[in-house]
Amino acid sequence: MCAPSLISTVHEELSRRHFLGVLGGAVAAASVTGAAQPSAKPLRLAKGFRDTFDLTHTLSSRTPVYPAFRSMQFVEKFTIAKDGFGCGELTFNEHTGTHMDAPAHFIAGRSSVDRLPVDRFFAPLAVISIKARVDKSPDTAVTVDDILAWEKLHGRLPAGAFVAMYSGWDTRITDAARFLNADAKGTMHTPGFGGEAVKFLTEQRDIVGVGVDTLSLDLGTSATPVAHLTVLGAGKYGVEVIANLAAVPAAGATLIVGAPKHLGGTGGPVRLYAVA
Amino acid sequence: MCAPSLISTVHEELSRRHFLGVLGGAVAAASVTGAAQPSAKPLRLAKGFRDTFDLTHTLSSRTPVYPAFRSMQFVEKFTIAKDGFGCGELTFNEHTGTHMDAPAHFIAGRSSVDRLPVDRFFAPLAVISIKARVDKSPDTAVTVDDILAWEKLHGRLPAGAFVAMYSGWDTRITDAARFLNADAKGTMHTPGFGGEAVKFLTEQRDIVGVGVDTLSLDLGTSATPVAHLTVLGAGKYGVEVIANLAAVPAAGATLIVGAPKHLGGTGGPVRLYAVA
Repeated sequence: MCAPSLISTVHEELSRRHFLGVLGGAVAAASVTGAAQPSAKPLRLAKGFRDTFDLTHTLSSRTPVYPAFRSMQFVEKFTIAKDGFGCGELTFNEHTGTHMDAPAHFIAGRSSVDRLPVDRFFAPLAVISIKARVDKSPDTAVTVDDILAWEKLHGRLPAGAFVAMYSGWDTRITDAARFLNADAKGTMHTPGFGGEAVKFLTEQRDIVGVGVDTLSLDLGTSATPVAHLTVLGAGKYGVEVIANLAAVPAAGATLIVGAPKHLGGTGGPVRLYAVA
Repeated sequence: MCAPSLISTVHEELSRRHFLGVLGGAVAAASVTGAAQPSAKPLRLAKGFRDTFDLTHTLSSRTPVYPAFRSMQFVEKFTIAKDGFGCGELTFNEHTGTHMDAPAHFIAGRSSVDRLPVDRFFAPLAVISIKARVDKSPDTAVTVDDILAWEKLHGRLPAGAFVAMYSGWDTRITDAARFLNADAKGTMHTPGFGGEAVKFLTEQRDIVGVGVDTLSLDLGTSATPVAHLTVLGAGKYGVEVIANLAAVPAAGATLIVGAPKHLGGTGGPVRLYAVA
């Protein structure tokens, strides 16, 4: 369904890589270490901002996860009393807490977390609230009309935007049953992006990714993961389980994604900021 | 040795916390989720910057770690072919790869990673190169004279600065033996911050933290972890195993720390950027 955008994104990625490869010889340290080169284009950061927002939930063994996953484990390995320093060992599924979905999460052969270009982690942030509808029914999707309504108020989505759904779901984080909101058959009743909306965003607009305050880009009731397949299939990334979007301006803020960088990762916990 | 700075830092932290507590009632979502409040003061971000630098090594099972730690483990739990999506489980020691040391790493009762105020993760970056000396002998420390020499060139360290040692060590990351550089007795021969230098930075200057491209803030040959105890004891944080500092301007860039945020963490992998 998104073949044209897939093709153009592949072309875009190839030309980016070629460009980075050309630059690569000039900065030996970066080539050796796998650190990315400086971005070739100016950052799209808002100027003169004075507020920093932390959009990250604190990660713990009580953080809700998909039923198929184990919760995060923390094992104390060294203590100040015994060893002079404290240090623990963490074990978690990549898709735990406030986290990224890389294209490789659903699309074989596409970018893993360590391969995504750094300049995509600094993005104009658009927050689309569907909380009023969600308060009536959680089986509610972000639609093309929601996006157009946002644009009517704030202007066309800026180039390289990150589009976040705010549904009010983050306040449920301390109660796993309410966060998952599964019925007796195990179907989750949680809001997300509709198929037409992500098709519109990836084909008609220039975005770096989309995010949600729930556990999934997709509606819990969606029979197929159409939002995942469309967004990741277009080479964009997702961020799930976002906190604190209620505090951020609907337009004008800049998202900064402190992305995971483990080799071949399909995703992982992020530190997510907005500055405005 | 740093009692006066400890006391003033404790006062500072208490007043910050009080202030955050007062603010807390106003933003219910943030209180519930543990997300930090907007920073109360304007960000010290450089304006009009056009380059983004990734100062983060790619994390893998081959990333060098202290001999007492296990290397990072990645276990594939779900695959696109079998499950429709790919997803792995990660296990690692908190102090692995490009990572943060929180005050709680060495000082009982002090801030864990989830407790550090977010505005400290956006900081003017000062890069002090001691590579020329390190090329002759790795048992070389950043001194007060090195800091004063930097200030002679670039002016006094800005308020809230992050001071990074560049020694050229990051190019060794792909070879654990060269990165650890241990002798037959197990003593590492790696550069770091000298005791007088960190005393000067924490008592005579206003910093948020210090960083190194080696595995430790301290010299490998240091009998006591004086740099850790002084920096973390003053309520500042450290970042170790930084990549790519050769590419960053010595002055004028802004560090952005995508910090870990797990409950009670003594440290953890970061995504580290500089913008200039």
